[in-house]
Amino acid sequence: MARWEPNAAERLAHAALDLFAERGYENTTVIDIAQRAGLGKSTFFRHFQDKREVLFGGDTMSGLLAEAIAAAPATATPLEAVAHALDAAGREVFTPARREFTARRQAVIAANPELREREALKNLTLIAAMAEALKRRGVPDLTARVAAELGALASAIAYERWCRTTADDGFGEIARQALDDVQASTAAC
Amino acid sequence: MARWEPNAAERLAHAALDLFAERGYENTTVIDIAQRAGLGKSTFFRHFQDKREVLFGGDTMSGLLAEAIAAAPATATPLEAVAHALDAAGREVFTPARREFTARRQAVIAANPELREREALKNLTLIAAMAEALKRRGVPDLTARVAAELGALASAIAYERWCRTTADDGFGEIARQALDDVQASTAAC
Repeated sequence: MARWEPNAAERLAHAALDLFAERGYENTTVIDIAQRAGLGKSTFFRHFQDKREVLFGGDTMSGLLAEAIAAAPATATPLEAVAHALDAAGREVFTPARREFTARRQAVIAANPELREREALKNLTLIAAMAEALKRRGVPDLTARVAAELGALASAIAYERWCRTTADDGFGEIARQALDDVQASTAAC
Repeated sequence: MARWEPNAAERLAHAALDLFAERGYENTTVIDIAQRAGLGKSTFFRHFQDKREVLFGGDTMSGLLAEAIAAAPATATPLEAVAHALDAAGREVFTPARREFTARRQAVIAANPELREREALKNLTLIAAMAEALKRRGVPDLTARVAAELGALASAIAYERWCRTTADDGFGEIARQALDDVQASTAAC
Protein backbone atom coordinates (compact mmCIF):
# COMPACT_ATOMS: atom_id res chain seq x y z
CA MET A 1 0.00 0.00 0.00
CA ALA A 2 1.24 3.45 -0.90
CA ARG A 3 1.55 5.74 2.07
CA TRP A 4 0.01 9.19 1.81
CA GLU A 5 2.82 11.74 1.74
CA PRO A 6 1.83 15.31 2.59
CA ASN A 7 2.98 17.85 -0.02
CA ALA A 8 4.93 15.18 -1.87
CA ALA A 9 4.77 16.98 -5.22
CA GLU A 10 6.02 20.23 -3.73
CA ARG A 11 8.78 18.50 -1.74
CA LEU A 12 9.92 16.69 -4.89
CA ALA A 13 9.94 19.94 -6.88
CA HIS A 14 12.07 21.70 -4.26
CA ALA A 15 14.46 18.74 -4.00
CA ALA A 16 14.78 18.61 -7.80
CA LEU A 17 15.47 22.32 -8.04
CA ASP A 18 18.20 22.11 -5.39
CA LEU A 19 19.84 19.15 -7.12
CA PHE A 20 19.60 20.64 -10.63
CA ALA A 21 21.27 23.80 -9.32
CA GLU A 22 23.95 21.89 -7.36
CA ARG A 23 25.02 19.23 -9.85
CA GLY A 24 23.14 20.01 -13.07
CA TYR A 25 19.99 18.57 -14.60
CA GLU A 26 21.87 15.88 -16.56
CA ASN A 27 23.66 14.57 -13.47
CA THR A 28 20.52 14.20 -11.37
CA THR A 29 18.36 11.06 -11.41
CA VAL A 30 14.77 10.53 -10.32
CA ILE A 31 16.12 8.39 -7.45
CA ASP A 32 18.37 11.28 -6.33
CA ILE A 33 15.36 13.59 -6.28
CA ALA A 34 13.15 11.18 -4.36
CA GLN A 35 15.94 10.50 -1.82
CA ARG A 36 16.60 14.20 -1.25
CA ALA A 37 12.87 14.70 -0.66
CA GLY A 38 12.83 11.75 1.77
CA LEU A 39 10.45 9.84 -0.51
CA GLY A 40 10.51 6.73 -2.67
CA LYS A 41 10.87 6.47 -6.45
CA SER A 42 7.31 5.16 -6.77
CA THR A 43 5.97 8.26 -5.04
CA PHE A 44 7.83 10.33 -7.65
CA PHE A 45 6.16 8.47 -10.50
CA ARG A 46 2.72 8.78 -8.90
CA HIS A 47 3.10 12.53 -9.27
CA PHE A 48 5.23 13.02 -12.39
CA GLN A 49 5.66 11.05 -15.60
CA ASP A 50 9.40 11.78 -15.91
CA LYS A 51 12.30 13.85 -14.57
CA ARG A 52 11.47 16.90 -16.69
CA GLU A 53 7.93 17.06 -15.38
CA VAL A 54 8.90 17.61 -11.73
CA LEU A 55 9.29 21.38 -12.32
CA PHE A 56 5.96 21.69 -14.13
CA GLY A 57 3.48 20.38 -11.59
CA GLY A 58 1.69 17.95 -13.87
CA ASP A 59 -1.63 19.27 -15.20
CA THR A 60 -2.56 21.34 -12.14
CA MET A 61 -2.15 24.67 -13.91
CA SER A 62 -4.35 23.79 -16.91
CA GLY A 63 -7.19 22.76 -14.60
CA LEU A 64 -6.79 25.87 -12.47
CA LEU A 65 -7.01 28.23 -15.46
CA ALA A 66 -9.92 26.36 -17.06
CA GLU A 67 -11.94 26.35 -13.83
CA ALA A 68 -11.39 30.07 -13.28
CA ILE A 69 -12.51 30.83 -16.83
CA ALA A 70 -15.63 28.70 -16.32
CA ALA A 71 -16.39 30.51 -13.04
CA ALA A 72 -16.04 34.05 -14.49
CA PRO A 73 -19.27 36.09 -14.58
CA ALA A 74 -21.49 35.33 -17.57
CA THR A 75 -21.14 38.94 -18.74
CA ALA A 76 -17.32 38.82 -18.83
CA THR A 77 -15.65 39.34 -22.20
CA PRO A 78 -13.17 36.66 -23.30
CA LEU A 79 -10.19 38.67 -21.98
CA GLU A 80 -12.01 39.46 -18.72
CA ALA A 81 -12.51 35.71 -18.26
CA VAL A 82 -8.79 35.24 -18.95
CA ALA A 83 -8.05 37.88 -16.30
CA HIS A 84 -9.96 35.70 -13.81
CA ALA A 85 -7.70 32.81 -14.78
CA LEU A 86 -4.56 34.89 -14.20
CA ASP A 87 -5.98 36.03 -10.85
CA ALA A 88 -6.32 32.37 -9.88
CA ALA A 89 -2.72 31.73 -10.97
CA GLY A 90 -1.69 34.62 -8.72
CA ARG A 91 -3.58 33.17 -5.74
CA GLU A 92 -2.41 29.57 -6.18
CA VAL A 93 0.91 29.55 -8.03
CA PHE A 94 2.61 32.93 -8.31
CA THR A 95 2.21 33.79 -4.63
CA PRO A 96 4.59 36.05 -2.66
CA ALA A 97 5.74 32.97 -0.70
CA ARG A 98 6.67 31.18 -3.91
CA ARG A 99 8.42 34.08 -5.64
CA GLU A 100 11.94 32.99 -4.75
CA PHE A 101 11.26 29.36 -5.71
CA THR A 102 9.73 30.53 -9.00
CA ALA A 103 12.75 32.68 -9.87
CA ARG A 104 15.20 29.84 -9.14
CA ARG A 105 13.03 27.45 -11.14
CA GLN A 106 13.03 29.83 -14.10
CA ALA A 107 16.83 30.12 -14.03
CA VAL A 108 17.23 26.33 -14.06
CA ILE A 109 14.77 25.96 -16.96
CA ALA A 110 16.48 28.71 -18.97
CA ALA A 111 19.82 26.90 -18.62
CA ASN A 112 18.57 23.54 -19.89
CA PRO A 113 17.30 22.89 -23.44
CA GLU A 114 15.27 19.81 -22.43
CA LEU A 115 13.46 21.78 -19.75
CA ARG A 116 12.91 24.68 -22.15
CA GLU A 117 11.29 22.27 -24.60
CA ARG A 118 9.00 20.87 -21.91
CA GLU A 119 8.10 24.40 -20.84
CA ALA A 120 7.27 25.37 -24.43
CA LEU A 121 4.96 22.37 -24.78
CA LYS A 122 3.37 23.10 -21.38
CA ASN A 123 2.70 26.62 -22.57
CA LEU A 124 0.84 25.28 -25.62
CA THR A 125 -1.16 23.01 -23.32
CA LEU A 126 -2.16 25.98 -21.15
CA ILE A 127 -3.18 28.02 -24.19
CA ALA A 128 -5.29 25.11 -25.49
CA ALA A 129 -6.91 24.65 -22.05
CA MET A 130 -7.83 28.36 -21.91
CA ALA A 131 -9.19 28.31 -25.48
CA GLU A 132 -11.31 25.24 -24.74
CA ALA A 133 -12.67 26.80 -21.54
CA LEU A 134 -13.59 29.95 -23.47
CA LYS A 135 -15.34 27.90 -26.17
CA ARG A 136 -17.41 26.19 -23.47
CA ARG A 137 -18.61 29.71 -22.54
CA GLY A 138 -19.88 30.11 -26.10
CA VAL A 139 -16.94 32.15 -27.41
CA PRO A 140 -16.46 31.46 -31.15
CA ASP A 141 -13.49 29.22 -32.00
CA LEU A 142 -11.16 31.80 -33.53
CA THR A 143 -11.90 34.46 -30.90
CA ALA A 144 -11.24 31.88 -28.17
CA ARG A 145 -7.87 31.02 -29.70
CA VAL A 146 -6.90 34.68 -30.08
CA ALA A 147 -7.96 35.51 -26.50
CA ALA A 148 -6.03 32.51 -25.14
CA GLU A 149 -2.87 33.53 -27.04
CA LEU A 150 -3.15 37.13 -25.87
CA GLY A 151 -3.75 35.86 -22.34
CA ALA A 152 -0.63 33.69 -22.46
CA LEU A 153 1.45 36.61 -23.74
CA ALA A 154 0.04 38.87 -21.00
CA SER A 155 0.85 36.17 -18.45
CA ALA A 156 4.46 35.94 -19.70
CA ILE A 157 4.84 39.74 -19.58
CA ALA A 158 3.23 39.85 -16.13
CA TYR A 159 5.62 37.16 -14.94
CA GLU A 160 8.63 39.20 -16.13
CA ARG A 161 7.28 42.30 -14.36
CA TRP A 162 6.38 40.37 -11.19
CA CYS A 163 9.96 39.03 -10.97
CA ARG A 164 11.37 42.56 -11.27
CA THR A 165 8.91 44.53 -9.15
CA THR A 166 9.85 45.76 -5.72
CA ALA A 167 6.29 46.91 -5.01
CA ASP A 168 3.75 44.83 -3.12
CA ASP A 169 1.61 44.24 -6.20
CA GLY A 170 0.36 40.69 -6.51
CA PHE A 171 0.63 38.73 -9.72
CA GLY A 172 -3.10 39.09 -10.44
CA GLU A 173 -2.96 42.90 -10.41
CA ILE A 174 0.16 42.95 -12.57
CA ALA A 175 -1.46 40.49 -14.97
CA ARG A 176 -4.57 42.68 -15.37
CA GLN A 177 -2.36 45.61 -16.28
CA ALA A 178 -0.41 43.43 -18.74
CA LEU A 179 -3.68 42.26 -20.31
CA ASP A 180 -4.78 45.88 -20.75
CA ASP A 181 -1.40 46.73 -22.31
CA VAL A 182 -1.52 43.76 -24.67
CA GLN A 183 -5.08 44.56 -25.71
CA ALA A 184 -4.15 48.21 -26.36
CA SER A 185 -1.20 47.04 -28.47
CA THR A 186 -3.41 44.98 -30.76
CA ALA A 187 -4.83 48.23 -32.08
CA ALA A 188 -1.33 49.35 -33.12
CA CYS A 189 -0.59 46.15 -35.03
CA MET B 1 37.75 17.24 -46.23
CA ALA B 2 33.96 17.19 -46.19
CA ARG B 3 32.40 16.61 -49.57
CA TRP B 4 29.66 18.94 -50.69
CA GLU B 5 26.41 16.99 -50.77
CA PRO B 6 23.62 18.53 -52.83
CA ASN B 7 20.33 18.86 -50.89
CA ALA B 8 21.79 16.90 -47.99
CA ALA B 9 19.45 18.50 -45.42
CA GLU B 10 16.38 17.73 -47.50
CA ARG B 11 17.50 14.17 -48.26
CA LEU B 12 18.13 13.58 -44.56
CA ALA B 13 14.70 14.96 -43.65
CA HIS B 14 12.95 12.70 -46.16
CA ALA B 15 14.94 9.66 -45.03
CA ALA B 16 14.14 10.42 -41.38
CA LEU B 17 10.45 10.83 -42.09
CA ASP B 18 10.32 7.50 -43.93
CA LEU B 19 12.14 5.71 -41.10
CA PHE B 20 10.10 7.33 -38.31
CA ALA B 21 6.92 6.23 -40.11
CA GLU B 22 8.23 2.71 -40.81
CA ARG B 23 9.80 1.75 -37.49
CA GLY B 24 9.00 4.60 -35.10
CA TYR B 25 11.02 7.57 -33.91
CA GLU B 26 12.48 5.71 -30.91
CA ASN B 27 13.75 2.83 -33.03
CA THR B 28 15.56 5.02 -35.55
CA THR B 29 19.15 6.21 -35.05
CA VAL B 30 21.05 9.07 -36.66
CA ILE B 31 23.19 6.45 -38.43
CA ASP B 32 20.05 4.80 -39.85
CA ILE B 33 18.90 8.15 -41.20
CA ALA B 34 22.26 9.01 -42.76
CA GLN B 35 22.53 5.54 -44.35
CA ARG B 36 19.02 5.72 -45.81
CA ALA B 37 19.90 9.11 -47.30
CA GLY B 38 23.13 7.69 -48.71
CA LEU B 39 25.19 10.04 -46.54
CA GLY B 40 27.56 9.80 -43.59
CA LYS B 41 26.88 10.49 -39.93
CA SER B 42 29.21 13.52 -39.99
CA THR B 43 27.14 15.06 -42.79
CA PHE B 44 24.07 14.64 -40.56
CA PHE B 45 25.72 16.52 -37.72
CA ARG B 46 26.91 19.30 -40.01
CA HIS B 47 23.24 20.03 -40.70
CA PHE B 48 21.44 19.09 -37.47
CA GLN B 49 22.41 19.11 -33.81
CA ASP B 50 20.46 15.94 -32.96
CA LYS B 51 17.89 13.43 -34.20
CA ARG B 52 14.89 15.59 -33.28
CA GLU B 53 16.18 18.51 -35.29
CA VAL B 54 16.14 16.72 -38.66
CA LEU B 55 12.42 17.50 -39.13
CA PHE B 56 12.83 21.18 -38.24
CA GLY B 57 15.39 22.37 -40.79
CA GLY B 58 17.77 24.02 -38.33
CA ASP B 59 17.38 27.80 -38.17
CA THR B 60 16.42 28.32 -41.82
CA MET B 61 12.85 29.35 -41.05
CA SER B 62 13.75 32.01 -38.45
CA GLY B 63 16.14 33.67 -40.91
CA LEU B 64 13.60 33.51 -43.72
CA LEU B 65 10.87 35.21 -41.65
CA ALA B 66 13.21 37.86 -40.23
CA GLU B 67 14.58 38.76 -43.67
CA ALA B 68 11.10 39.08 -45.15
CA ILE B 69 10.02 41.36 -42.30
CA ALA B 70 13.13 43.50 -42.81
CA ALA B 71 12.41 43.73 -46.56
CA ALA B 72 8.74 44.76 -46.17
CA PRO B 73 7.93 48.31 -47.37
CA ALA B 74 8.73 51.02 -44.81
CA THR B 75 5.05 51.99 -44.71
CA ALA B 76 3.86 48.47 -43.78
CA THR B 77 2.10 48.06 -40.43
CA PRO B 78 3.51 45.38 -38.10
CA LEU B 79 0.96 42.80 -39.28
CA GLU B 80 1.52 43.73 -42.94
CA ALA B 81 5.23 43.07 -42.38
CA VAL B 82 4.29 39.72 -40.82
CA ALA B 83 2.17 38.99 -43.91
CA HIS B 84 5.34 39.42 -46.00
CA ALA B 85 7.04 36.86 -43.77
CA LEU B 86 4.20 34.36 -44.25
CA ASP B 87 4.33 34.99 -48.01
CA ALA B 88 8.01 34.05 -47.91
CA ALA B 89 7.16 30.88 -45.95
CA GLY B 90 4.64 30.04 -48.68
CA ARG B 91 7.24 30.54 -51.44
CA GLU B 92 10.06 28.63 -49.73
CA VAL B 93 8.59 26.12 -47.30
CA PHE B 94 4.85 25.53 -47.67
CA THR B 95 4.99 25.07 -51.44
CA PRO B 96 2.55 22.91 -53.42
CA ALA B 97 5.41 20.45 -54.11
CA ARG B 98 6.05 20.05 -50.39
CA ARG B 99 2.45 19.72 -49.26
CA GLU B 100 2.47 15.92 -49.03
CA PHE B 101 5.83 15.87 -47.21
CA THR B 102 4.57 18.55 -44.82
CA ALA B 103 1.41 16.59 -43.99
CA ARG B 104 3.37 13.36 -43.32
CA ARG B 105 5.86 15.32 -41.22
CA GLN B 106 3.04 16.79 -39.13
CA ALA B 107 1.53 13.35 -38.50
CA VAL B 108 4.89 12.00 -37.28
CA ILE B 109 5.41 15.00 -34.98
CA ALA B 110 1.90 14.73 -33.55
CA ALA B 111 2.54 11.08 -32.64
CA ASN B 112 5.78 11.72 -30.73
CA PRO B 113 6.03 13.74 -27.51
CA GLU B 114 9.74 14.52 -27.96
CA LEU B 115 9.10 15.91 -31.43
CA ARG B 116 6.10 17.89 -30.15
CA GLU B 117 8.34 19.45 -27.51
CA ARG B 118 10.95 20.42 -30.09
CA GLU B 119 8.22 21.85 -32.32
CA ALA B 120 6.84 23.92 -29.42
CA LEU B 121 10.30 25.35 -28.72
CA LYS B 122 10.88 26.02 -32.43
CA ASN B 123 7.61 27.91 -32.50
CA LEU B 124 8.81 30.16 -29.65
CA THR B 125 12.05 30.73 -31.56
CA LEU B 126 10.13 31.79 -34.67
CA ILE B 127 7.94 34.16 -32.63
CA ALA B 128 11.05 35.70 -31.02
CA ALA B 129 12.73 36.07 -34.44
CA MET B 130 9.67 37.87 -35.84
CA ALA B 131 9.40 40.13 -32.79
CA GLU B 132 13.10 41.06 -33.03
CA ALA B 133 12.78 41.78 -36.76
CA LEU B 134 9.79 44.04 -36.07
CA LYS B 135 11.69 45.89 -33.33
CA ARG B 136 14.52 46.55 -35.79
CA ARG B 137 11.88 48.31 -37.94
CA GLY B 138 11.18 50.62 -34.99
CA VAL B 139 8.05 48.85 -33.74
CA PRO B 140 7.74 49.30 -29.94
CA ASP B 141 8.63 46.23 -27.88
CA LEU B 142 5.15 45.21 -26.71
CA THR B 143 3.51 45.84 -30.10
CA ALA B 144 6.23 43.76 -31.75
CA ARG B 145 5.57 40.86 -29.37
CA VAL B 146 1.81 41.06 -29.87
CA ALA B 147 2.17 41.22 -33.68
CA ALA B 148 4.57 38.25 -33.67
CA GLU B 149 2.16 36.16 -31.52
CA LEU B 150 -0.80 37.04 -33.73
CA GLY B 151 1.33 36.22 -36.78
CA ALA B 152 2.25 32.82 -35.36
CA LEU B 153 -1.39 32.06 -34.58
CA ALA B 154 -2.42 33.16 -38.09
CA SER B 155 0.32 30.95 -39.51
CA ALA B 156 -0.93 27.94 -37.52
CA ILE B 157 -4.51 28.57 -38.65
CA ALA B 158 -3.36 29.08 -42.25
CA TYR B 159 -1.43 25.82 -42.08
CA GLU B 160 -4.56 23.95 -40.93
CA ARG B 161 -6.58 25.50 -43.77
CA TRP B 162 -3.84 24.88 -46.34
CA CYS B 163 -3.74 21.17 -45.42
CA ARG B 164 -7.51 20.91 -45.88
CA THR B 165 -8.06 23.07 -48.94
CA THR B 166 -8.78 21.53 -52.30
CA ALA B 167 -8.51 24.89 -54.06
CA ASP B 168 -5.32 26.12 -55.73
CA ASP B 169 -4.75 28.84 -53.14
CA GLY B 170 -1.16 29.13 -52.09
CA PHE B 171 -0.12 29.30 -48.45
CA GLY B 172 0.66 33.03 -48.70
CA GLU B 173 -2.88 33.90 -49.80
CA ILE B 174 -4.44 31.68 -47.14
CA ALA B 175 -2.14 33.21 -44.52
CA ARG B 176 -3.19 36.76 -45.44
CA GLN B 177 -6.82 35.77 -44.98
CA ALA B 178 -5.98 34.12 -41.63
CA LEU B 179 -4.15 37.27 -40.51
CA ASP B 180 -7.21 39.36 -41.40
CA ASP B 181 -9.45 36.94 -39.48
CA VAL B 182 -7.16 36.96 -36.44
CA GLN B 183 -6.93 40.75 -36.45
CA ALA B 184 -10.74 41.05 -36.70
CA SER B 185 -11.10 38.64 -33.76
CA THR B 186 -8.93 40.78 -31.49
CA ALA B 187 -11.73 43.35 -31.50
CA ALA B 188 -14.15 40.72 -30.12
CA CYS B 189 -11.84 39.75 -27.25
